[in-house]
Amino acid sequence: MSETNRTVPVVGMVGGGQLARMTHQAAIALGVDFRVLAARPTDSAARVVADVHLGDDRGRDDLLAFAKDSDVVTFDHEHVPQPVLRELHDAGIVLRPGPEALHHAQDKLVMRTRLSELGAPCPRWRGITSLDEVTEFAGQTGWPVVLKAARGGYDGKGVWVVGDAAEAAAVVERAAREQVPLLVEEKIAFRRELAVQVARSPYGQVAAYPVVETVQRGGICHEVIAPAPHLSEDRAVAAQELAIELAAALDVVGLLAVELFETDTGVVVNELAMRPHNSGHWTIDGACTSQFEQHLRAVLDLPLGSPRTMAPFTVMANLLGGHDPHVFNRYIHVMARDPELKVHFYGKEVRPGRKIGHVTVVGDDPDALLERARTAAAYLKGDAQ
Amino acid sequence: MSETNRTVPVVGMVGGGQLARMTHQAAIALGVDFRVLAARPTDSAARVVADVHLGDDRGRDDLLAFAKDSDVVTFDHEHVPQPVLRELHDAGIVLRPGPEALHHAQDKLVMRTRLSELGAPCPRWRGITSLDEVTEFAGQTGWPVVLKAARGGYDGKGVWVVGDAAEAAAVVERAAREQVPLLVEEKIAFRRELAVQVARSPYGQVAAYPVVETVQRGGICHEVIAPAPHLSEDRAVAAQELAIELAAALDVVGLLAVELFETDTGVVVNELAMRPHNSGHWTIDGACTSQFEQHLRAVLDLPLGSPRTMAPFTVMANLLGGHDPHVFNRYIHVMARDPELKVHFYGKEVRPGRKIGHVTVVGDDPDALLERARTAAAYLKGDAQ
Repeated sequence: MSETNRTVPVVGMVGGGQLARMTHQAAIALGVDFRVLAARPTDSAARVVADVHLGDDRGRDDLLAFAKDSDVVTFDHEHVPQPVLRELHDAGIVLRPGPEALHHAQDKLVMRTRLSELGAPCPRWRGITSLDEVTEFAGQTGWPVVLKAARGGYDGKGVWVVGDAAEAAAVVERAAREQVPLLVEEKIAFRRELAVQVARSPYGQVAAYPVVETVQRGGICHEVIAPAPHLSEDRAVAAQELAIELAAALDVVGLLAVELFETDTGVVVNELAMRPHNSGHWTIDGACTSQFEQHLRAVLDLPLGSPRTMAPFTVMANLLGGHDPHVFNRYIHVMARDPELKVHFYGKEVRPGRKIGHVTVVGDDPDALLERARTAAAYLKGDAQ
Repeated sequence: MSETNRTVPVVGMVGGGQLARMTHQAAIALGVDFRVLAARPTDSAARVVADVHLGDDRGRDDLLAFAKDSDVVTFDHEHVPQPVLRELHDAGIVLRPGPEALHHAQDKLVMRTRLSELGAPCPRWRGITSLDEVTEFAGQTGWPVVLKAARGGYDGKGVWVVGDAAEAAAVVERAAREQVPLLVEEKIAFRRELAVQVARSPYGQVAAYPVVETVQRGGICHEVIAPAPHLSEDRAVAAQELAIELAAALDVVGLLAVELFETDTGVVVNELAMRPHNSGHWTIDGACTSQFEQHLRAVLDLPLGSPRTMAPFTVMANLLGGHDPHVFNRYIHVMARDPELKVHFYGKEVRPGRKIGHVTVVGDDPDALLERARTAAAYLKGDAQ
C-alpha cells in the first residue's frame, strides 16, 4: 500500500482485547490509522482490526518493533511492566498515558501513596509485609479488612476480604511465596459504588462524563446506570472535580476512570484505570462522544468531544459467558423482545464468567432500563428462558 | 485461526467503499464475521476490515471464490452484472438482496416498467432509441426533459437535463455510440427532494425510517435533514407506506432507499437503491439503529432494530474533497468549534468533488443544525477559514 498519501496519524494500541476492538470502531469514524499489538490472532480486536501485529504485548522487543511506526502508542490494558515503559519512553516513543502516570494504575501502593499526598479521599490503608501488620491495622479499623495485591489484579482478582487473622494469614503467606507486595485497606461501609470518567489531552483540556452507578458482583462489574440515580448535584460535581484534579495531578493523557465508594458522607476512591473502562461502555450508545472516540481524541491531542448524555438514562449490562457458546443463536429472541436493545458482542470464545459482550438501553426510567438490560444479558448468557 | 469455535455467521460484502467500511463498524458490535471483496488494498473498507479479499468485485471468478465461504453475500454497490448474480444464485450462494430484486436498482428501464405496473407514482417516462422519440415525448411534456442512462449511473452521472432537441441529440448520439440504453423522463417541478429508507428481512419484517429531506447539488447529495422539516404527517406516512409496498413487491432483502421528488400534490419516485445509502448516514448518530446495523440484521434474518430517532432533528452534510489532501489537519478547528459534531472520514484519497466523509449534528433546530454541519463540511474541505 502506498504510504505517500498518508496524512493521518497512526495510533498503536497495545493489547488485543475488547477495549481495542471498540476503539477500532471509533478510529474508523475518525479515519485515523489504527493498529493493535495482540498476543493471539483470536483476540477480540485481532479479529476485526486490519492492521494487527502479533507478539508479546508485554514484552520489550515486540513493543519496540510495534511502536516504532506509530505516532502515538496507547493501551488496552495496564500490564506492560514499568521498566519496559521507561525504555520505550526513553527511545522517543510517544506513550499516552506516559509511564509515570500509568504507574498509578498499575501499582496500588504507588496509587494510594500519591492519592494520600494529594489529600484525595481514600480508605485508611497501609502497605504490609507481615500478618502482624495486618492484625495491628485491623486493631484500629476492626475486621473485616481488605487485602490487595499491589500489582496485577483486576475484576476482583487480587482482592481478598478477610474476616479474621486466620483468613489474613493464608493470603499473606501465599503473597509472600509469590513475592506479591500487599496492602491492607479498611472495608468501607458503602451505600453503593460509583465511577467517574474524565478525558485529558496533552494540551490540558479535560472533559468529564456524568458520574455513574456501577453494580458489582463478585468483584466484577455487572451493570452501569448513567447517570447515577438520585445522586445529589453537589456530590456529583464534587466527584467530577476530584477526577479532574487527579487527572491533572497525575498528568494523565487519555481516559481516567475513578472508581468510587459512596458513603453516608461523601465518596472514597477505590481504584483508578487509565484507559477506556467497563464503566464507560454506556457512552457508545448513550453519550454524544463515546469513551473510545474520546480516548483517541485525547491521545491525538485533538479537542475533546462533548460528553453529554443523549437520553435521561442509559443502562449497560455486561454479558458474561455461560455454558453454551452459541450466543448468536439467542440474538433472535432478545432482538425480537426489545428492538431498542443495543448488542455488543466481543468475538471472544465463550467461557463461564468471562466478559464476552454487553448490552445497552437508553430511556427515561432507570429501573425499567435495568430490568430490560438484565433480562437481555441473562437470556444471552443462557440463564433465562 | 481455529474455526472450530465458529458460532457466528459470515457476512460477505461485495465492494470496498465507505458503505462496507461503515457496515464493518456495525458488524463489530454485532460480533458477526464480516469480510469484504475489494478491488484495491487502499479502498475505504479494505483499510479497516480484518478479512479483506482482493479481487474484481464485479467479476465472476473472484465473486465465486469470495462467496463460497460466506453464509450471506450482500453489496456495497450495484455494479455486479445480472448474469454474474444469476450464476452465483444458481450456485446456491445466498445473495441478499437477490438478483431479481437488485435488477430494479441496476436498470432504470426495469425499475420504471415495474413501478408503473405497480401503480407507484413515477414521472411520465419511456425508453428511447432515437432522437425522434425524445422530441415526440417532449412534445407531450414540454422541454426540458431528463435523459437517463438505464444502467451505470450514480451521483448525477448518467443523467442529463436537456433543454431542446439539439442538446438531446448529443446525448442520444453518444449513448448509441457507447451502446447505453436510454430513457427519457419529464422534468418534475419539485419543491424539494425527499428519501425514505426501509429494511426488510427474508422473514418479511419491515422497519421504516423517518422520511428525510435531501439537498442535492449537481446530482450529488450534499445534506440530509432527518426528519424532513414541515412534512405533513399524511404525506410522511404515505411515503413510508409506498417504500414498504415496494420493498415487499420487489422482494427486497436488506435496505431499500426510495429517492422521491415532493411536488405540490404528493411524491414521485426518482430512484431506488438496495443497500445502505447516503440518505441514511444520519442514522449512525441520529437513530436507535443505524442503517448499517439494520442492513446486517435484515440480511441475517434477525429481528430488525428500532428505527426511531434519538433527537428531534439530525443533519448530515457530506464532506467532499477539495484541493488540499490534509483534511485531518483541519480537525482541530472544527472539533474545537463544535464539540458535538460527529466526524466520519472514509480513509479515501482526497480528490476534488469526491465523497470522502460526512459530518453529523443532532438537536432541536434544523436550520441551526444545517448551518453547523455546512460550516464544518466547508471548513474540512478547505473552502472556509
